[in-house]
Amino acid sequence: MFESPLFWPAYLKKNVLYVLDETLVPEKLKYIPVKDARQAVAVIRSMKTRAFGQFLVVLNTFLLELNPKGDLLKHIKDVAGQLNNSRPTFPFAEVTGIITGVAQKASANGGDVRAAVLKTVQGFLAGIRARRLQRVQEIAEVIEDQDSILTHCNVSGELAMAAAAAQKQGKHVKFFATETRPYMQGARLTVWELQQARARVTLVADSAVGSLMADGLVNKVIIGSDRSAANGDIANKIGSYQIAVLAREFDLPLIVLTQPSTGVASGKDMPIEIRDENEILAFKGKKIFGPRRLGFYPGFDVVPHQLITKAIAIHAGL
Amino acid sequence: MFESPLFWPAYLKKNVLYVLDETLVPEKLKYIPVKDARQAVAVIRSMKTRAFGQFLVVLNTFLLELNPKGDLLKHIKDVAGQLNNSRPTFPFAEVTGIITGVAQKASANGGDVRAAVLKTVQGFLAGIRARRLQRVQEIAEVIEDQDSILTHCNVSGELAMAAAAAQKQGKHVKFFATETRPYMQGARLTVWELQQARARVTLVADSAVGSLMADGLVNKVIIGSDRSAANGDIANKIGSYQIAVLAREFDLPLIVLTQPSTGVASGKDMPIEIRDENEILAFKGKKIFGPRRLGFYPGFDVVPHQLITKAIAIHAGL
Repeated sequence: MFESPLFWPAYLKKNVLYVLDETLVPEKLKYIPVKDARQAVAVIRSMKTRAFGQFLVVLNTFLLELNPKGDLLKHIKDVAGQLNNSRPTFPFAEVTGIITGVAQKASANGGDVRAAVLKTVQGFLAGIRARRLQRVQEIAEVIEDQDSILTHCNVSGELAMAAAAAQKQGKHVKFFATETRPYMQGARLTVWELQQARARVTLVADSAVGSLMADGLVNKVIIGSDRSAANGDIANKIGSYQIAVLAREFDLPLIVLTQPSTGVASGKDMPIEIRDENEILAFKGKKIFGPRRLGFYPGFDVVPHQLITKAIAIHAGL
Repeated sequence: MFESPLFWPAYLKKNVLYVLDETLVPEKLKYIPVKDARQAVAVIRSMKTRAFGQFLVVLNTFLLELNPKGDLLKHIKDVAGQLNNSRPTFPFAEVTGIITGVAQKASANGGDVRAAVLKTVQGFLAGIRARRLQRVQEIAEVIEDQDSILTHCNVSGELAMAAAAAQKQGKHVKFFATETRPYMQGARLTVWELQQARARVTLVADSAVGSLMADGLVNKVIIGSDRSAANGDIANKIGSYQIAVLAREFDLPLIVLTQPSTGVASGKDMPIEIRDENEILAFKGKKIFGPRRLGFYPGFDVVPHQLITKAIAIHAGL
């Protein structure tokens, strides 16, 4: 089965964790070797890996640190502290807290701390992997023969793998990927991933969505999401909202790959990150529009649940 | 009164037509010398000049071609043919048809073909200039105090000049300009022009329109158009249609600066130019997304008249 490098961007081999440098994808597939917690913190801090990749690094780092010179429990707690401090705004403590809890409990019961941590981390990783693969199959099932699917931004491997799976099921499918200005995740990552999956994909400007729909060139929309509210509203890359309005205008199903809900009641309660205006005033780090420009770059927008036809969730539980 | 270089981007001087290279604006104000129809077609095809500039080039080209070696009437018709074939979406034939008609008539009546063409073209140019200045005033009138106006692509001087006029009338106004990928006319031209007019303007990605409206940050939309149908449908830069749908979603007035209707019954009858995919796969002439990418770039889309709140036309009569 086709597996996108973005689907599982960090893997352990002979006590070295290889972390995909996502800043170089797709021009280069370079894996950064990480041998200990210190290097793990560096790779997280430098944002060489993002979102799910950082989560994989956090979990795997415990496996790199199971043979310390001193007391293992104390060491595990120290590793957790280093990871928690690597990016203070990220909820790594929720994950590391579970690992230190398991170690603490094993130690208190006179059990094997090393075996307990190993089993827990490996169990987590296997479970997450199984659930993500399951979702790939669920996405493949909503893909029908002759579909022409619009997508926006990048959903880290799953859509491309679902495309490969759908094609294996004999379905003929094509995709339109928006550029996703200003970071161009669609143009850089999604197009590349879908091509790796041998799917047919065409790049369009973010401004072409309405025209594509009006001309009957797409019949379905599949996007990811960064956050979910209890009422089913989602936040996703800027542009998702207007795509959702347009999909409703043309009665096209909007399918969203959702995150576990994070406690907020509705989209109104989700703070929208306003990113640095330079991200829209520059391209690949170079100012492109001259001086004295004002830019406004809300990184995300909210899609109300009324506009979402079907949510495909990652199943609950870490 | 403030006059933008884009308001009148081609002028004739001593039998050379100087065409503003709009691809270099605003970094450079460079004028390309055009000496004959062949060079005029090249400057149109390469999109060095756009919309109204192309129209000025089409008209002025006849003035460059009034001294052929052979028969003038035959030559005028040949020039018209070359211009008509330069860009299929554009209704150059309607303009060139008038010129060839005048030449034909003068020839049939035994008149001076050269004088007839000269007088017609010069009359057109003077009339158009007067009517465009009049429209600037009309746009200034629909701009109200405290407006926050979204615009897309570039309307060649008139919006910036209207902004200057509105401000002179004591109105406080601000603008949001979309980038207008892939050619970035909004980011490059509109932002610069509005700044030249000392208007307050903020650049946003094309994908941010829905979010801006949902957050109540704009209350009015003003766009130009490249073509009008008899029923009031217009064709304009790709992205205009989805902005129109979003404006209706939020009950925002959509004001369109329209061209004289060009004979087609409705937007369905307007052929949409599909431009080279490389224009979306490259940025400033450099491939940005690696090889083997497919792109799709409809240059324009159609806004049905039902979505247009107010059309401000250039007054009739070429």
